[in-house]
Amino acid sequence: MIGVTFPRGFRAAGATGGIKASGRPDVALVVADGLANAAGVFTRSRTAGHPVTLSRAHLAVMGGRARAVVVSSGNANVATGAQGRHDAEEMASEVAAGLGADAVEVLVCSTGVIGVPLPMNAVRTGITACLASLASDGGAAVAEAILTTDNGPKVAQRVVDLAGGQARIGGVAKGAGMIRPDLGTMIAIVTTDAMIGPEQLAEATLGAARRSFNRITVDGCQSTSDSLIVLAGGASGVPVTNGDRPAFDGALAAVCLELALAIVRDGEGARRIGRYDVTGAASFEDADRAARAVAEAQLVRCALHGGDPNWGRIVAALGVCGAAVNVDRIAIAIGDVAIVSGGVFVEGATDRCVEQAAADEVRFSIDLGIGDGSATVWGSDLSPAYVACNAEYTT
Amino acid sequence: MIGVTFPRGFRAAGATGGIKASGRPDVALVVADGLANAAGVFTRSRTAGHPVTLSRAHLAVMGGRARAVVVSSGNANVATGAQGRHDAEEMASEVAAGLGADAVEVLVCSTGVIGVPLPMNAVRTGITACLASLASDGGAAVAEAILTTDNGPKVAQRVVDLAGGQARIGGVAKGAGMIRPDLGTMIAIVTTDAMIGPEQLAEATLGAARRSFNRITVDGCQSTSDSLIVLAGGASGVPVTNGDRPAFDGALAAVCLELALAIVRDGEGARRIGRYDVTGAASFEDADRAARAVAEAQLVRCALHGGDPNWGRIVAALGVCGAAVNVDRIAIAIGDVAIVSGGVFVEGATDRCVEQAAADEVRFSIDLGIGDGSATVWGSDLSPAYVACNAEYTT
Repeated sequence: MIGVTFPRGFRAAGATGGIKASGRPDVALVVADGLANAAGVFTRSRTAGHPVTLSRAHLAVMGGRARAVVVSSGNANVATGAQGRHDAEEMASEVAAGLGADAVEVLVCSTGVIGVPLPMNAVRTGITACLASLASDGGAAVAEAILTTDNGPKVAQRVVDLAGGQARIGGVAKGAGMIRPDLGTMIAIVTTDAMIGPEQLAEATLGAARRSFNRITVDGCQSTSDSLIVLAGGASGVPVTNGDRPAFDGALAAVCLELALAIVRDGEGARRIGRYDVTGAASFEDADRAARAVAEAQLVRCALHGGDPNWGRIVAALGVCGAAVNVDRIAIAIGDVAIVSGGVFVEGATDRCVEQAAADEVRFSIDLGIGDGSATVWGSDLSPAYVACNAEYTT
Repeated sequence: MIGVTFPRGFRAAGATGGIKASGRPDVALVVADGLANAAGVFTRSRTAGHPVTLSRAHLAVMGGRARAVVVSSGNANVATGAQGRHDAEEMASEVAAGLGADAVEVLVCSTGVIGVPLPMNAVRTGITACLASLASDGGAAVAEAILTTDNGPKVAQRVVDLAGGQARIGGVAKGAGMIRPDLGTMIAIVTTDAMIGPEQLAEATLGAARRSFNRITVDGCQSTSDSLIVLAGGASGVPVTNGDRPAFDGALAAVCLELALAIVRDGEGARRIGRYDVTGAASFEDADRAARAVAEAQLVRCALHGGDPNWGRIVAALGVCGAAVNVDRIAIAIGDVAIVSGGVFVEGATDRCVEQAAADEVRFSIDLGIGDGSATVWGSDLSPAYVACNAEYTT
């Protein structure tokens, strides 16, 4: 049992509807045995997709409850006008009809190309196939069916010890490109069998997003479709008490972080990832701004790709990131090698960190030397393969 | 006569000092016959280079006057501590000694790698050689000597008709990577023989920067060294009257724009450039934000590289750029082919704009349909060659 069917009380399925020309699975369905408490965090894009708008509305109308989540991959249903809105609604109602539920109990996610109408015949075929094959071990099939340019499936699961017993949390995600989540992510669905109320779940979900998906970047391009949805079915019979919240919230964040890091590692064309720990900033906001600016700077990402300890570009990115910066106080380490101290290069450091700059995960410790603010961001390198992948994606 | 020696009253030179391992020219000098009125616009980076800090201070102390500009290329003299400050000062005093001027009358620009101390012996050798070879046709030598990863020299010149006669404006620039000027540019030096006061010149220079260098982007990475310096020697004897200001300012901006576009065309790894005209925004600021966000979006730049009319990524970038956007009012044209109308794809448009999406310069007209704000930004594509160039630059 992996992913969304690791917790008890959920069934899931993935199927080929025909959206993707490749014939690979492209529709997924996650269903709670009964009405589950549910929370969602979505993209802040002003051109958010119809599925995002619909899922937000359904969660609001239902007061944080949902029965199922349906996902189509290969087409994002964004910028598709009134037809797109109708298609998202139809996805919800087809699923609801099959489950004997109300359409408003169904959440919808779509990911893929923007601006092309959903091929609804293919979507309907996929939904029908999913409804027919729902299984309590369907988590792996969901992980396959939601992928687009990802290289492989991304699942994570945890058992969390609560006062009343053990509860499970399991999740699935997809990523690849257009990854720079802000209060959400590409698409991630997390389930738990813990008993937790809608308000508590919403709070825990937002906290988890902030500690996981909002800490990663692939290409600095925020998507129209970012959606993190958490379903809490309660099948464990174990409640999340107030005293359990740190444990539950931490486990939920850990599952989300594992999925988020899997997305970065599998960023389009990625060869290695950078971990940017900023400390000594004037505030958390400044630290976040600085870490994100460095992680997203194309020149830093090119150097990361080349395994080149080009710390000068980090200083350049810090200078324009908007955070309070005093060049004379900047200290930078790559791995455990101090390479900049007091804003000046440490003699001979480059040779000593060549190996660490070429590791699969390179850790950059950046101390601004000003205050107590700290933040971490993970980002992938920028490679010729990323460009090749995205130079000819639609045509 | 081209570039900075197109106007009368200036001499210039370029020489090989030995900063660049390649042995190509790496020191340049531009000298006015007498003390010229001068204006500068510099990077807003908080980790600006020592040359930027020094030139800003010299211009302030001299009340907008300068005798000469010295440029070293191959090393930016940034994040080099107290030694770097001293080295920039020494560059000014070496030039001043050779000219019989005060050090404070000399402006300094350096461009190249960050964080490595300037090789001052090489710099001194180059300055001495430049002083010995100053010539009234030295503009071409300057254009060569300031280059780093540029493919070729960038000069521009204009004759402007003023009430009292003709005056000349000539300029030189270098660019390539780390190009996302904000109130400045990599390095550009413009000369004129018009008679114009320091305050008027400062105003015209700021206006020209806003209409040229601040409208381009290569990689969204703002540099530590951006400097635009304009010297007005007055050798034409032709004053710029208040009535002449629109003509003079327009010609100055035209020279700057020509240099700026040359920088974009020669962006590292660039195959083609995009022109992003945003109209119908709520304000100029919103239009600027939208045009810049689209021009800098890595996925848009990859599509530009591939000649792929992937307008969906433009909608995605607009959604998160911070400008007021209503997806249902967005209209987009590529060349003269309307591809999005009312936020929805125009049937069959992709086929009709394939050729225009693959032109050397692709024009994107983006109407937000909300207000009267408009702005244009030019940007280059993102290519595997850019990544290759920047994956192994220092080591």
